[in-house]
Amino acid sequence: MKKKTNTAGTLKQEGGMPEIKLKRLGEEMVEQVNANESPTFETLLRSKGNILFDEGRGYLRLGDKVEKRTFVNVGQARKFMQTVAIANKCKKFLKEGAHTSIRGLFYQLKFSLGEDLDEELFSEQSESNPLIEDLEVALNIKREDLNLSTDRKGVVAGALVLNDKFGGDETEIDCSKQGRSGWMIPSDVDNGMEFLSVDADYVLVVEKDAMWQRLNEDKFWKKENCILISPKGQSSRGCRRLIRKLANKKLPVICFTDCDAWGWYIYWTIKTGSMNLAYIAQDIAVPEAKFVGVTMQDIKDYDFLGKLTIKAKEVDLKRAQEMKEYEWIKAHKEWVAELNEVLKTKKKIEQDALQGPRLSFVSEYLKEKIGKKKFLP
Amino acid sequence: MKKKTNTAGTLKQEGGMPEIKLKRLGEEMVEQVNANESPTFETLLRSKGNILFDEGRGYLRLGDKVEKRTFVNVGQARKFMQTVAIANKCKKFLKEGAHTSIRGLFYQLKFSLGEDLDEELFSEQSESNPLIEDLEVALNIKREDLNLSTDRKGVVAGALVLNDKFGGDETEIDCSKQGRSGWMIPSDVDNGMEFLSVDADYVLVVEKDAMWQRLNEDKFWKKENCILISPKGQSSRGCRRLIRKLANKKLPVICFTDCDAWGWYIYWTIKTGSMNLAYIAQDIAVPEAKFVGVTMQDIKDYDFLGKLTIKAKEVDLKRAQEMKEYEWIKAHKEWVAELNEVLKTKKKIEQDALQGPRLSFVSEYLKEKIGKKKFLP
Repeated sequence: MKKKTNTAGTLKQEGGMPEIKLKRLGEEMVEQVNANESPTFETLLRSKGNILFDEGRGYLRLGDKVEKRTFVNVGQARKFMQTVAIANKCKKFLKEGAHTSIRGLFYQLKFSLGEDLDEELFSEQSESNPLIEDLEVALNIKREDLNLSTDRKGVVAGALVLNDKFGGDETEIDCSKQGRSGWMIPSDVDNGMEFLSVDADYVLVVEKDAMWQRLNEDKFWKKENCILISPKGQSSRGCRRLIRKLANKKLPVICFTDCDAWGWYIYWTIKTGSMNLAYIAQDIAVPEAKFVGVTMQDIKDYDFLGKLTIKAKEVDLKRAQEMKEYEWIKAHKEWVAELNEVLKTKKKIEQDALQGPRLSFVSEYLKEKIGKKKFLP
Repeated sequence: MKKKTNTAGTLKQEGGMPEIKLKRLGEEMVEQVNANESPTFETLLRSKGNILFDEGRGYLRLGDKVEKRTFVNVGQARKFMQTVAIANKCKKFLKEGAHTSIRGLFYQLKFSLGEDLDEELFSEQSESNPLIEDLEVALNIKREDLNLSTDRKGVVAGALVLNDKFGGDETEIDCSKQGRSGWMIPSDVDNGMEFLSVDADYVLVVEKDAMWQRLNEDKFWKKENCILISPKGQSSRGCRRLIRKLANKKLPVICFTDCDAWGWYIYWTIKTGSMNLAYIAQDIAVPEAKFVGVTMQDIKDYDFLGKLTIKAKEVDLKRAQEMKEYEWIKAHKEWVAELNEVLKTKKKIEQDALQGPRLSFVSEYLKEKIGKKKFLP
């Protein structure tokens, strides 16, 4: 029997290239029309009510609630047409082998759809953005697979060699030979990117770029045989995907952030994912990740840190309180103890403070704590 | 006759390494003490009243007003001691051959000065930051020369080969072999960085990273033999310094930004410098820079752009009005005409809009305008 609906569930179980998936999406709609049915588009709901923490997998993911959009419905027709228009553009980009940003996509939509229609199909980018996410979910692929580039951020040094097939060229990227700059993590670390070799014992993720530079100058990655990554603050999609891929190679992932609201957020986003990107959690969450510091316990273990703490801000305290309520955090007594300490002392510590005694102390600190496996889960 | 004061003017005329300059700064203070004088520190004022537009040089620079700080003055003693403490730390960093951020410097100051003094010499980083700038001006060197790293941002592709001496290693960086990522512009493009070869006809500076990626994918830099740079928004110090160094090699610098307040700001900051960094303008301003687009004139020259314009925001209009008053802008009738057009039509255009007809149109647009030298000054 021929399938007639493009349910997200069905497509999810199928492999295949983005082009094929987009083609099938269109073909199924044509079949629906030929069968005198209204063409429909089905995707998983991405709203808060359909996001759950999956204890088994260890990350925030979408549940099973479905959203169905049909053409012959006054309230849904516009969105339906918009979704098809976006799918159509992505198919064109894939065929051309050219990438653009979601802003570039928006202008393409605005340009080419304005003339054939009485009404402007897209007036604001806020209309196209959520529909891109819908497509990602419905087709079970990332927008990067649809030649849509995302904001890139983050840097790598270490014994990681990649082959970058891009714009008709192939380039070998050796992350151990990037000097002071490091290798900038691109938007897409899957398509046309091949890991040629990974020769390291673990991955160290360092919140701040300035700290990454400090450790890179100390050749920490060489001495300790690790892959040194900085997301430069909150991780980009590409950075999280790269960390996930390194974790797939059985490399432990160790995170080093400030001991404050922003630092914790960076860690937990890498580990369990975030509400916003729950729809691609399977590709980017790293539940195996561990936290090396900075911790409140460090203030007790390293005397000098006492005078380098900062008064916690309201946001830090509020966040600490909230975190204690999250099921995936309160399950760990070590984290509850840490957060209680923050709330009690009303203090925070930056990773930069570890440079107080001498610039190279950060390396010593990390070496000791990682060596003794002094991690928070 | 032996010099007794370390006037900024005198030191400015001397060459030499940062270490020597720091050493002399200290020696002169010791001489002053030995001569029963109060040790003094002299620098150029960086306040607005001492910033002028130098028509001959084409950039905003500091005037000649001097600020003198002496130890035996109740109101100046603290600042004086702080300045000396910073100079001392920088000397140590240079000796160790290690770099840190201004945040790292702050923690070093907080750590090692807390114990010997009754009073905490530094309580906030806002105290150390301006004194670093004072040192830069007084010694006529950049903080990067004092092993203080700055926020890095920006990316390069093209026929530029550099040698990067860093942390005891040497790495050859070929900016034509960086795949999709490009080479990330570091904080310091002077010390330990050598240009091995530059084989390009001009430098193209592109405001947005997404647009840089688009042009990199089109191999624009290869086809048009240029060095393709994106500052990723407002330019970092390192990015501006790199553009300056390429301009020193007689490469024309062409800028491509949005036609709005933020885009103009990026262009003019590269060209004439900014108030904030007037004190290092001679090292980073690029008065030779030209503006290729996007311009209001483009709306007339490229039909389709009409429907891809956006309503200008209040900030765009306010900025356009202000810019018309700047002496270095109102001298150019082309810019006055552009700004009047903005104020009249209340419209703006993003560079992304040029992807409307087809993704590769941006390349065609740039090729045509650069070929015909359709620039604004």
